[in-house]
Amino acid sequence: MIYFDNASTTKMDRSAIEVMNKSFSQYFANPSSLHSLGFEVEKKIRKSRESFAKFLNIKPEQVYFTPSGTLSNNAVIQSAIKNNPKGNIIIGAIEHASLINLYKNIDYDIRVCPVDEWGYTDEKKLVELIDENTCLVSIIHVSNELGVINDINTLSKICKEKNPNLSFHSDGVQAFKKIDINLAGVDYYTFSSHKINGPKGIAGLYIKNPKTFNPLYFGGGQEKGLFSGTENTYAIFAFEKALELDNNFDKVLELNQYLRRELAKIEGTKILSSEKNVSPYILNVCFEGIGAEILLHYLEMDQVYISTGSACSKGVKSKVLHELGLKDKDIDGCVRLSFDRNSSLEEGQKFIEILKNRLDMIRGILNR
Amino acid sequence: MIYFDNASTTKMDRSAIEVMNKSFSQYFANPSSLHSLGFEVEKKIRKSRESFAKFLNIKPEQVYFTPSGTLSNNAVIQSAIKNNPKGNIIIGAIEHASLINLYKNIDYDIRVCPVDEWGYTDEKKLVELIDENTCLVSIIHVSNELGVINDINTLSKICKEKNPNLSFHSDGVQAFKKIDINLAGVDYYTFSSHKINGPKGIAGLYIKNPKTFNPLYFGGGQEKGLFSGTENTYAIFAFEKALELDNNFDKVLELNQYLRRELAKIEGTKILSSEKNVSPYILNVCFEGIGAEILLHYLEMDQVYISTGSACSKGVKSKVLHELGLKDKDIDGCVRLSFDRNSSLEEGQKFIEILKNRLDMIRGILNR
Repeated sequence: MIYFDNASTTKMDRSAIEVMNKSFSQYFANPSSLHSLGFEVEKKIRKSRESFAKFLNIKPEQVYFTPSGTLSNNAVIQSAIKNNPKGNIIIGAIEHASLINLYKNIDYDIRVCPVDEWGYTDEKKLVELIDENTCLVSIIHVSNELGVINDINTLSKICKEKNPNLSFHSDGVQAFKKIDINLAGVDYYTFSSHKINGPKGIAGLYIKNPKTFNPLYFGGGQEKGLFSGTENTYAIFAFEKALELDNNFDKVLELNQYLRRELAKIEGTKILSSEKNVSPYILNVCFEGIGAEILLHYLEMDQVYISTGSACSKGVKSKVLHELGLKDKDIDGCVRLSFDRNSSLEEGQKFIEILKNRLDMIRGILNR
Repeated sequence: MIYFDNASTTKMDRSAIEVMNKSFSQYFANPSSLHSLGFEVEKKIRKSRESFAKFLNIKPEQVYFTPSGTLSNNAVIQSAIKNNPKGNIIIGAIEHASLINLYKNIDYDIRVCPVDEWGYTDEKKLVELIDENTCLVSIIHVSNELGVINDINTLSKICKEKNPNLSFHSDGVQAFKKIDINLAGVDYYTFSSHKINGPKGIAGLYIKNPKTFNPLYFGGGQEKGLFSGTENTYAIFAFEKALELDNNFDKVLELNQYLRRELAKIEGTKILSSEKNVSPYILNVCFEGIGAEILLHYLEMDQVYISTGSACSKGVKSKVLHELGLKDKDIDGCVRLSFDRNSSLEEGQKFIEILKNRLDMIRGILNR
C-alpha cells in the first residue's frame, strides 16, 4: 500500500498506540477526581502540557487541549466576535473549511483576503482590509491543499502596524511538526494530533492571553474553563508521544523533489505547489484532461491512496484552487499527494510507475 | 483496588480496547477521503450510527457523534438560544455543570426549576415557569450526584401541555445503558461513552429534528454539518462496542441494596439517594461530623476510590446538595459511591469493612 493522503489523516505511530494502551489501564481515572488515581492523571496532563509548551517555546498555561482543530479555530473566531460585537475579522481566502464555513454561516463582518497565483497571502490587500475595528486576523500557516507557507510573523507584524489592537491567529494544523514554528508575533495557534501520527479526537490551541478568551462552551471548568468536558486523557498522552517523533524532514523533502522531477516529465502535468516557501509534505499536481476522481479510483486498484483537493469537504469542488484563478476543468484534474514521516523514496518510485500506467490507461480510454 | 467512582469515569472494557486497537491499523483513514480506505471507514461509522439508533429506538439520521456530553448539552442550549433570541429556557436546579455553568455565563433568560428534598423535579414549579416564549426545557435524566431518575416523558408531556411549541432535552449521561430509556416524548438526548466503559473523547446526541438545529461551530460538514471536525473514528467504534456490553443491572442492584443495608447500620450515616426511582449505579451517603475529603484520602490508603459530590467541578462545594436544603456542614460529610457493570458484591463487602475501620480511625482522632 502507498498512502499519500497524510494531510487528510495519518496512521497512528506504534509508540503512540503503546502509550494509549498503557493509559487505558494505568491512567483511566478522571483528572477532576480528588483521589490519588485522579491526581496522577492530572499530573500527567500537566506534564503533557509542558511538553507542548517546550516544543512551541511558549508557557504551559498558554497550551490548551481541544477536541479538534476545527473547534480550536471556531473557538478563536467566536471568542473574538463575542468580545468585539461591532468589530470585524479578516481571514485568508484559502483557509481550512472550519474558517471558510464559519465565515459563510455567521452574521458578522468577516473580510476575506485574496491570495496570489501560488496561494500566498496578498500582503497589500491584507493591510487595506484592516481598519480600526479589526479585532482579529486569521491566516493559515501551511495551506492544506497546496502546502505553501505563509510567513505568519511578518504578516502579524504588518497587520499590527496598521492596527496594534488586533490579534493574530494562525491555523497551524499542516505546519505543526512539519516545518519550523516561531510564535513570537502570534496570539493564537491551532495544532492537531491526527496529522502527526497521533490519535484522532485531540488537538491543541496556543492562547497568548487566556484571560481575555471568551469560551465557546461551558461545563466542569476543564482546561481552565476554556474547553470544558472530561479531558480526552488517553488521546492527550498519545498526542504527547507523537510530538516526540522525528518528522524525517530531509527524507520527505527528497521524496518531494524526486516526485516533482518525475512528474514534470509526464506530459500534460502541472505542479500547483510553489517551489519555494512550501512544505515538502504536500504536493498538488494537475493532469490535463484527466478527472482526478477517476485517477484516484484507478490508483486505488493498485493500493495507492491519494486525495482530490482537500479531503475535508467531500464532493465539494476546491475553493482553494478557484482562488488561484484555475478554471473548473483544470481543477477537475488536480490531486493532492501528502506525506508523513514514514513516506519513502521507494514509495515515490513505485508511485510514479503506477501513475504512468494508470494515466496511459485512462488516456487510452478517453482517446478511443 | 475498589473503584467506586464510576460516575466520574469508567475503566475501558477489554473488548472496546480491542476494537480500538484493530481500528488503529485497519480503519485509520479519514472518512471524508474519496478513496476506498476512507469509504470503508465511512461505512463503518454508518454501521455504528445504526447500532445507537437501534438501541435508542430512533432513526440513524437522528444520531450525532460529538466530542463530549458537555458539548452535546451546550450545542442543544445554544442552538435554542440562536433560534429564539427573545425566548427563554428552563433547566433543572441539579443539572450537570455543563448546563449550570452555561446558565451562569450566558446572557439569556434561563430559568432554574427547583427540586424536592430527594432531587426530583418540582413539576408544579416547572409548569409555572413555562410561558409562551419558552423554547426549551432541559431536565437531567439521572442525577450525577444522587442517582434519582426523572420521568422525562411525563415531564416533557406536562411541559408541552402548557406550551406545545417548546422542545424537551434531557442529559442522559448517567442513564445511558444503566436504566431503561424511552425517548418517545423527548426532542434531544445526551449520552456519553466514558461512563459506560467506552473511551473518552466521544459522546452522542439524539436530535429529533436535525433540520432546525443551529450548529455551535462550523467546518468540513461532518455529522451533517452539526458537529464538524474529523470524526473520532477509533473512539466511535470502541463506543459502539461498549454499547453491546451487558450492564449487569441486577448484580449492581444487589450491591447497592447490600450497601444501603450495611451503611444504615453505621451510626451517624444518612443515605441521600432516594430508595425509589433511582439508579442503582449511584449512591450518595453522608457521614455526620466527618469531612468527606478526609474520608476519601483515608480510603485511598486502602486502594478504595470514591468521590465527594460530583467529580466534574473539583474543589467546588456541591450545588446539588445545597438544592436539597442541606447545610454546608452536612454537605461536607457526603460522598458518592458509583458503580459500573463490573462492580461486585464482594467489593461491597470489602468496602464496608474498610469503611468502618477508617471511620473509627477518623472519629478516634477527632474525639481525642
